Amino acid sequence: MTTMTEHLFDADTAVHRDGDRYTATLTDRWTALGGTPNGGYMLAVALRALQAEMPFPDPLVTSAHFLRPGLVGPAEIRTEVVRAGRRVATGQAGLVQEGKEIVRLLATFGDLEQAAGRTHMLNEAPRLPQPGETPDLLIGGALPGVSITEQIEYRAPAPPGWAKGAPDGEPSFEFWMRFRDGRDADPLALAALVDGAAPAVLDLGARGSATMELTVHVRGRPAPGWLACRTQTRHVIGGFHEEDFEIWDSAGSLVAQSRQFALLPA
Amino acid sequence: MTTMTEHLFDADTAVHRDGDRYTATLTDRWTALGGTPNGGYMLAVALRALQAEMPFPDPLVTSAHFLRPGLVGPAEIRTEVVRAGRRVATGQAGLVQEGKEIVRLLATFGDLEQAAGRTHMLNEAPRLPQPGETPDLLIGGALPGVSITEQIEYRAPAPPGWAKGAPDGEPSFEFWMRFRDGRDADPLALAALVDGAAPAVLDLGARGSATMELTVHVRGRPAPGWLACRTQTRHVIGGFHEEDFEIWDSAGSLVAQSRQFALLPA
Repeated sequence: MTTMTEHLFDADTAVHRDGDRYTATLTDRWTALGGTPNGGYMLAVALRALQAEMPFPDPLVTSAHFLRPGLVGPAEIRTEVVRAGRRVATGQAGLVQEGKEIVRLLATFGDLEQAAGRTHMLNEAPRLPQPGETPDLLIGGALPGVSITEQIEYRAPAPPGWAKGAPDGEPSFEFWMRFRDGRDADPLALAALVDGAAPAVLDLGARGSATMELTVHVRGRPAPGWLACRTQTRHVIGGFHEEDFEIWDSAGSLVAQSRQFALLPA
Repeated sequence: MTTMTEHLFDADTAVHRDGDRYTATLTDRWTALGGTPNGGYMLAVALRALQAEMPFPDPLVTSAHFLRPGLVGPAEIRTEVVRAGRRVATGQAGLVQEGKEIVRLLATFGDLEQAAGRTHMLNEAPRLPQPGETPDLLIGGALPGVSITEQIEYRAPAPPGWAKGAPDGEPSFEFWMRFRDGRDADPLALAALVDGAAPAVLDLGARGSATMELTVHVRGRPAPGWLACRTQTRHVIGGFHEEDFEIWDSAGSLVAQSRQFALLPA
């Protein structure tokens, strides 16, 4: 007899149709520093509700504006199909808690399997040793109070400077990432995982980074296994900064690319 | 006696409040290849209506999804204030023509003059000869059928390969840009100008590039004068590609950074 066990990411992003809206519960298993739900996790919950309304499976491009900190607890998601075309469809979703909107996003869906145009790459996957030969950055544990680090595993040849108490002034990092429970990534998970690591600006000595907007491009359905990631910030001006994030799959293909607009804490 | 002459960009993005919405006219002076209004121009019209509803002046981050080709002619813009906070406010705008929505965007506004955080740059402005010593790429003319090139002036040491009929395989370009009539750029104009040049993928031999989504970060209020621009595409996968665009002002500051998600024509 086999017991089907649902992976945590699927259980914790589950949405239920309730009339003209969806309901969900933001669990305490995906929190960032401060105990509030991680932005990528909230994005995934809202996107999953919208996905259920869309005639195409893949969230090709999603742009989410973060309006307020989220809460662990119930949420509702209001969706709107803005335009459904023959090849792509665009929708909107708003995640609401206690009557206040927390995240609003627009997303254009399509079918990545139907992408028939040419391919031309001027960038390469991060050069990392094989995951089996690469140390776990959290040495099997998790960051206290940051529960998302209990669900995601990070491996890199050496920890970033900030993690050793010595920010090295280089706001960029390359590392492996995967769900700890073995769930492979799919396009929806990629849209969450681009926000699943520590901000690159911590290596400038920043105490954190508040995401105002996140745009994620899903470029391919990922092959199973570890994801090679690259994060970088190049321009901090008056505290405002971008964070660029790339995810490459185990077959060496770019599968997601994102950019955040964020603010250093005062 | 002085006659005040309105600059074309201001006249052609003018919006008029009409009850709970705004009206505007998309003129034939900002068309792209094919004769349809340029995406950045449509974005600016929608953003100008939203700006009138926002308690802060600067569109810090705007994400626009392009739903259908626009038309030269009347348009209406439906706006919504999603959240007005103490330091930033987020709104939504939809540009509608003949009953169909053409562009929908979300934008978070703030006041760039109040940005008090630190600055740390890991990138430099394009190294270009002074504009006065740099050839006009259109030699005083404009591209037939692309009326936006009548309103914007482009200067670079040498034209891109595609413009000489020989795409050079390098989808990146650095150049000067300004409005031909001498209007200086402001944050609203920057949000249009990031889409005001030819797609970098033309140097891969592509015939064009259809923008699906455009996110623009405005990083500063530009100093008067010429704008130094850098455009680049690094990843074309199955026809889908990003285009990154930077605008640096005459004082050498990064003032806008954008990324498009676009598709090569079949």
